[in-house]
Amino acid sequence: VPGRIVVVGSGAAGIGAAAAAKAIDPSAEVTIYSGSGDAAGGFDRLFLAGPQTCLDAGIVLRHGPRITAIDLDRRAVDVEGEGAAGWDRLVITAGSEPAGAGALPTDLEGLYAVGNIPSDEEWDRVLAGAKVAVVVEATAPGLEMVTALAERGIETHLVDPRASTLAGAADPDIAAPVEESWAEMGVKTHFNTRVEGLLGEGRVRGVRTSEGELPADVVVVCSRPPAGNDLAAAAGLVVSSGGGIKVDERMATSAAGVWAAGECIDLPGGARFPLQDSGSQAYAQGRVAGTNAAGGSRAYQPAYVPWSLPAGRWTLGGVSFGETQATAAGMPYVLGKATGISRARYYPDVKKVTVKLLAEPGSLRLIGAQMVGGEGIKERADFLGMAVKMGITLTDLAFMENVYSPPIGALNEPIAVAAQNGLATLEASR
Amino acid sequence: VPGRIVVVGSGAAGIGAAAAAKAIDPSAEVTIYSGSGDAAGGFDRLFLAGPQTCLDAGIVLRHGPRITAIDLDRRAVDVEGEGAAGWDRLVITAGSEPAGAGALPTDLEGLYAVGNIPSDEEWDRVLAGAKVAVVVEATAPGLEMVTALAERGIETHLVDPRASTLAGAADPDIAAPVEESWAEMGVKTHFNTRVEGLLGEGRVRGVRTSEGELPADVVVVCSRPPAGNDLAAAAGLVVSSGGGIKVDERMATSAAGVWAAGECIDLPGGARFPLQDSGSQAYAQGRVAGTNAAGGSRAYQPAYVPWSLPAGRWTLGGVSFGETQATAAGMPYVLGKATGISRARYYPDVKKVTVKLLAEPGSLRLIGAQMVGGEGIKERADFLGMAVKMGITLTDLAFMENVYSPPIGALNEPIAVAAQNGLATLEASR
Repeated sequence: VPGRIVVVGSGAAGIGAAAAAKAIDPSAEVTIYSGSGDAAGGFDRLFLAGPQTCLDAGIVLRHGPRITAIDLDRRAVDVEGEGAAGWDRLVITAGSEPAGAGALPTDLEGLYAVGNIPSDEEWDRVLAGAKVAVVVEATAPGLEMVTALAERGIETHLVDPRASTLAGAADPDIAAPVEESWAEMGVKTHFNTRVEGLLGEGRVRGVRTSEGELPADVVVVCSRPPAGNDLAAAAGLVVSSGGGIKVDERMATSAAGVWAAGECIDLPGGARFPLQDSGSQAYAQGRVAGTNAAGGSRAYQPAYVPWSLPAGRWTLGGVSFGETQATAAGMPYVLGKATGISRARYYPDVKKVTVKLLAEPGSLRLIGAQMVGGEGIKERADFLGMAVKMGITLTDLAFMENVYSPPIGALNEPIAVAAQNGLATLEASR
Repeated sequence: VPGRIVVVGSGAAGIGAAAAAKAIDPSAEVTIYSGSGDAAGGFDRLFLAGPQTCLDAGIVLRHGPRITAIDLDRRAVDVEGEGAAGWDRLVITAGSEPAGAGALPTDLEGLYAVGNIPSDEEWDRVLAGAKVAVVVEATAPGLEMVTALAERGIETHLVDPRASTLAGAADPDIAAPVEESWAEMGVKTHFNTRVEGLLGEGRVRGVRTSEGELPADVVVVCSRPPAGNDLAAAAGLVVSSGGGIKVDERMATSAAGVWAAGECIDLPGGARFPLQDSGSQAYAQGRVAGTNAAGGSRAYQPAYVPWSLPAGRWTLGGVSFGETQATAAGMPYVLGKATGISRARYYPDVKKVTVKLLAEPGSLRLIGAQMVGGEGIKERADFLGMAVKMGITLTDLAFMENVYSPPIGALNEPIAVAAQNGLATLEASR
């Protein structure tokens, strides 16, 4: 049984790893160093009830000092200003570098990237003077950025080389309502468009794209950022060709006693699932790494990890394969689709909910889901993740029972109707 | 194969029956008569996209005329002003009488009962002059009424003979936040208190209770209303000692070719599940009745039907057994409980979510759940209803994957944490 477990990074992966390790082995001494991590929105924000909750769980939090090196031979990390701290097991969740780091000029005022957005106060000041913004790439942070800028009344342009929002993760029909709501909010989307350069000297003036120039006061690059592999590479851990720390399905690195999770890794075989770089996947990977580091045994199964995020006036969500991915993978599927509503239609704030279910032909076991709606998409995604994992079928879902309560739930649950429609389509094709 | 299916009533049970019948046998001629039904909030409000949706599904809607009699021998209903309409199969979803009908005086101004609330406009007028209201019984409609009255700024008193809100359905610890939020809204709750009479002549002045008099300008009786059995009893159908139409688990009445569902029935053996009289259960019963009426085969399984409803500043929900019910039934259980949050805690409108899971000792299969929170309770209840049905265990739920997306989902899904806590408690007791 390992005594000292050190977790480098306090993002979703780091917190997941520490909590899982402590749950598996309550006697382990678990320490999180946030210095090199990607504490999105501030360290203490990641906790249920603040750092106190972590302390209550017996996890030691070190928010100040950075980890400057990992020594595999001595089994220690170098803590800035403190010297070596020993570990028996190490979990690296070093997150990512700022998007475009190394590729973007650092001296252009008005140019920002994911992981490099200034504090709220300074950001407010930047945007107060901005009339037009360009967001580069419709990734998960890109969606959030576009929506936030548009809500501030800034003329916002989204440039993405692919054909639709979250292409590959969200099917185009599922993403369409988001794009429509952006249009209502004044957002201009430029799909199938590559950014080929930046305009301006000293201060950004816009971007040059494959379809012409787009002037802007602010440019925010939201491309998927490169993995944070510096510490690991310097320590001699194997880094994959994709730039991430190489791990197996147990999140074990090339070194005994060292695990890694989150945005700093590359998955075995380069496997890609929807929003592989999302917080949901990072948290799931962290839990696997922490479990194994503490002596447990668990494999990472990305196909069961649901995803969901708000965008425009909608919330997107799903699990495992959508139509785009299934088609790309050459996987046959039975499709059930339905559009329902989030509450009785005479209630305020009623929203459409569209559900697509993909099932394996023959067995009719669920292999994926895609959704767009308002409330309850995250909870439906969690449910359908479990449904994929447990081998639940379209038939099971077609006969599911559901709440009927006009202010919060319509007579027909869209998941059930989608499953019923899938069965009806199948029946009609026989 | 039956040709003509008549559905009496257009509440959740009636709509569920008609839709299920049409799905089972698309060639069937399905007609809904709403006249005798309990079209809560108006007939057209019950539909996804209004009556048009029903028409599109090939269901005939008759909103005007009342059904005045059922003739079992001729297999016809008497339609007011139209004469006999024949059926091959009949589904009765006649709802309930107004609460207290027959027991309450009809000549007291200011006295209302469930099913007898005037139109929005008149109700506004009534309440405009009201300073103090008494709501009798913390049933599902009672909860809605208390909350709505308090939100209008009326000093609202809730009188209930039982010990807590939705006693029997919601465990006291689950109901507690609702009661606290009512207190913040100025509601005075009077539990363990019986209403023994009404005060006032011509106009209601309040109620006399086992604990003294409570003055009021408006009194709303929300006690569970008696089953609407008039038509059925007159036709010679067997009515149970509870006052409802007697049905078996397939929702078949004592007469061949006649089914019944919703608030007008009594369940076999007097079985009681949480909110047995809720819209969720009525809809589930209706679907069973409609399926069987159209030649399908399905049994009603109330233990799998989730429930949820807003109350005060919270939403309650669950499925099957809570602690109160399991204890009353002498059922042993393993308990897992956790309080989490609905989104990252630094986001606006973050709410606590408390989940209790009950599992069968040994197998650890889920046997019930109770919840209180904000968004996503209805969707979690749907999920857990399916989990009970599919035999999912505490261990399965402890290892479920979940969305992490700060604006809509916290790192830890409370369902997973409750399951983990249940397993930890079990481990500690060994």
